[in-house]
Parts: sequence; C-alpha cells; structure tokens
Amino acid sequence: MKVITSDNLTETVLDSFSRCTDPRTKEIIISLVRHLHDFAREVALTHEEWRHGIEFLTATGKRCDGIRQEFILLSDTLGLSSVLDAINQRHEGESTQSSLLGPFYRDGVKEVEFGADIARTEGEPAVFHGRVLDGDGKPVPGALIEVWQTAANGMYEGQDPDQPEGNLRGRFKSNAAGEYAFRSLKPTSYPIPTDGPVGRMLVATGRHPMRPAHVHFRIQAQGYETITTALFSSGDPYVGSDAVFGVKSSLVVDYVPQEGKEPYFDVERDFVLLAKEQT
Amino acid sequence: MKVITSDNLTETVLDSFSRCTDPRTKEIIISLVRHLHDFAREVALTHEEWRHGIEFLTATGKRCDGIRQEFILLSDTLGLSSVLDAINQRHEGESTQSSLLGPFYRDGVKEVEFGADIARTEGEPAVFHGRVLDGDGKPVPGALIEVWQTAANGMYEGQDPDQPEGNLRGRFKSNAAGEYAFRSLKPTSYPIPTDGPVGRMLVATGRHPMRPAHVHFRIQAQGYETITTALFSSGDPYVGSDAVFGVKSSLVVDYVPQEGKEPYFDVERDFVLLAKEQT
Repeated sequence: MKVITSDNLTETVLDSFSRCTDPRTKEIIISLVRHLHDFAREVALTHEEWRHGIEFLTATGKRCDGIRQEFILLSDTLGLSSVLDAINQRHEGESTQSSLLGPFYRDGVKEVEFGADIARTEGEPAVFHGRVLDGDGKPVPGALIEVWQTAANGMYEGQDPDQPEGNLRGRFKSNAAGEYAFRSLKPTSYPIPTDGPVGRMLVATGRHPMRPAHVHFRIQAQGYETITTALFSSGDPYVGSDAVFGVKSSLVVDYVPQEGKEPYFDVERDFVLLAKEQT
Repeated sequence: MKVITSDNLTETVLDSFSRCTDPRTKEIIISLVRHLHDFAREVALTHEEWRHGIEFLTATGKRCDGIRQEFILLSDTLGLSSVLDAINQRHEGESTQSSLLGPFYRDGVKEVEFGADIARTEGEPAVFHGRVLDGDGKPVPGALIEVWQTAANGMYEGQDPDQPEGNLRGRFKSNAAGEYAFRSLKPTSYPIPTDGPVGRMLVATGRHPMRPAHVHFRIQAQGYETITTALFSSGDPYVGSDAVFGVKSSLVVDYVPQEGKEPYFDVERDFVLLAKEQT
C-alpha cells in the first residue's frame, strides 16, 4: 500500500484520475486539482477559512435562479470571464476586440431601419454611426448589428418595469456601403448586483461594484466570426476600474458634443470582422 | 488609462484588491485569483467548458441543505480536505496522524463504561483496545474518546432509520493507566453519496465512490491538542484508493481473529496526543 504523506498527497489525488477515459476532462481536472492544492498550501489555508469558503460557494449557488446567475457574476468580478475572452479570441488586434456579453442580452428584438431612434425614455441624445469592415478594410454589407444599453437610471430594459418594451435595444443591418447609424442616449455607469455573496466579496476586498458607461454590440455576418463587444465612454469615472474587467482601451470612444437646435453627442466607430477559418 | 491586454489582465485584476484593508483576506484572494487565471490559461478553457463549470458549481450549491453538504463532499473528493489536514497538523509523525472528521460525527452521545459494547445491530464482533499516551509515552488518564462507524449495511446511525439510537457510537474515558477498551463490530466499506454533482464528477473522471472500512476516533484531553482520526481495516479492497483520500498507512490496523466460544476480531491500537503549545 502506498504511504500517503503531505508530500505525495497531491500526486495521489492526481493518480486517482488515471482511469478517466476522456483526455480533455482528464487534462482539465488534473490542472484544476493541482492549482486548488497549490493555492491551499501557498496561503496555508486554515480550517476556519476553508469553512468560510464552503459557506461562500454554497450561498453563491443558492443565490442563482432563472434570472440571477451569481457564479457568472463571481467569474466576471474575479476576471475569469475576461481571461476566457482573451484566450478564445483568435488573432487579437486584427478584428475589433471583444468584451463580455453580460447578462442583459436579449434575443427577438424587432429590426429597425438605418438611422432609427431606439430610445423610448429621456436622456442625453447620442448618434452612433460607422462602418462594418472586413480585415482588408472592405465594407461588409448586410451585417446584423444588435445593441443594448442602460437608460439614464443605469438600468436595462428587462431589469426595470418602468421602461417601455424594447427601450434602448436595437437590431439593424449595415447598408450596401457597410454603414450603420442609430440614434440613442449617452449611456450611464451602473453597479452590478451587490445584494448577494459577490457584493459581500467586493466589500470585504475594498472594491467598488461599478461598471463604466457602455453600449453593447453584437455583430454577425455570413462568412465572418461573430463579435461580442462594447463601446465604453471616455471620461467615465469608472473606465479605469471596471468591476468586471471588460474595458479595453481600443473600445473607449469619445462622445463629441454637437451644437445646434437639438444638441446631441456624436460617436463614430468602425467595426472589423474576421473571415471565418475554412474548416 | 491603462491598456488591458491578455498579458496584463491578471495583474489588473490583482491590482483591484489593492484597497483591501485586511492583509489575510488580500493574501488569500490574490493567490486564489492567480491560480484561477493560471488554470484557465493552462488548459485554454473554452466558453462551453466554462459554462459546464458554472452549471456544476450552481448544481453543487443547490444540492446543499441542512443534512447534505455537497461542497464539502467536493472538497473531500478533490483531496482539498486532506491537504488542509496535512497543512494544519503540527509536528506530523509525533502525534497520531489525523484523518477527516466527515459528515457523520454527532455530539451528545451518552458516555459508557470501560469495555462497553456499543453495537445494537448484528455484524462481526470486534474488540478495540489500547492506550492514550503523551509524546513521551506516558499514559494520559481521563482522555475523552469518541468513536463512530458504519453498521454491517455500510450506513451510519443517523443516515439509516432502521438503526437504533446511538448504534455504533461510543463516548468514554481512558482509565488511570491511560487504557481504553470497547466492543463493537468490524466496520464495512461504503460509498459516499453519488446522487448529486460530485457523483457525476466521479463517473466522468473514471473514479469509484468507495471509502474503505474505518472507525472514526476523536480524542480530547486537558492540555493536549484534540485529534480527529480513523482506523482503517487492512485488507479492505479500497484501502489503497479511498474516494476522499483520508487513509494514511499509519492508521491501517489489523483485525486479528480470536477463536473460542464466541469468535471476534481483536484490534489493538495506542493513540499519541501532543501537549498544547503554551500561548
């Protein structure tokens, strides 16, 4: 019989997976267990701290329901979701950078015309326009663009019973020249949900729960990789400290004030899609 | 504004904890996040795999209730609980080695006399005896010894409505010579609960759910560190592959058959307590 000691315990646990027939499952669990043990040893985790961790994970699971997913929020606030984004985006730098999808995307929004106004609530008007391009700078016509953002109160339609159906959600296509344009509002920063275990983690670690103001974009076109991204407002007080680490400097845009009879902000931004790899 | 790239993302996340005022919390979360990110990068975790992980953790949280603690079971089956035991036991080798407390310990069991029989169900009789000693080999009288084990059907009293109250649970004191003795049954191996996420993990990774037969011991005495340990049966088919990694070779004992009018097994075992450090 093998003598288990604190020195060979981890290897003994890893050996227990030797009959795992799926190589990918085996690779993942072995890496996970090695890091889990290394973490516990590195900080010399006490039983009391472990018990806190067990209670935290249990409470996080209990906080999940059809609407709220506290483990995704935990993944977001610990930067894991952004690490996944970074790992899984091919050829970073060639196409527009990605950002988190977040929990507020919604399918089935009605398609609107070029230049339509998607705001049904009050706020600071803003016009967004630009082109959808391929890697060679050529226009991509007929790309499906979906956008969603918070209202002036920092809430998304769907979160907030006071907002009209479809408020600040848009779905439209780029024109023959690859151009898009829509009218909306300048978005506002907002806190992620803080009334659960993740909120307690932020307080315990001295962090704020704010996301800088942003407009989500999802762009799909035949033959191209779909991109999920967001445009963040330059000058937002939280643009350098996003609670979920979704900001990339290439995604920060200026809201340029336009004077006139009806003042508004102008935001110009092109998106670059990458052709799908032949399979 | 700092440019977040896949190269500095982890450092950016770690920096977000810079205002954490409790140094221990900070140390733990920084190590945890570093290992979490390293794990995701090491295996190049996909979004689909991440989603599986989120669902697994959520289901694990939902499976916890007043009786069942699936996250502790996960900690046990991934060897984390045994790592904690190893980290937190001072002076390994000097005192009796520790093993997992497990979920079946119960307080408030009635104290019995030296040599009492604690079995209220049928099985193979066994007599356990030995001494409680200090680090110099001197007897420790009046040590409180608590024992608990499965019945012949592999279940603990409390799990099994068919077992009489207090079956195979003992609570007694060492005598003036530091000796203890009790009559019980030879324990049986048994599976950990497999009808939850942890059971699915074991199946997916090609592992069995069995714990080798064992008797739990918890020994307390004034001025000594309490020890939580177990004696495992030599020859048990699972003694080399405990599903929760609690077996240490120093804790494996022989059940020596005794012939005679009423055959029984004899188990002799001393326990060594370590004096508490002066604080």
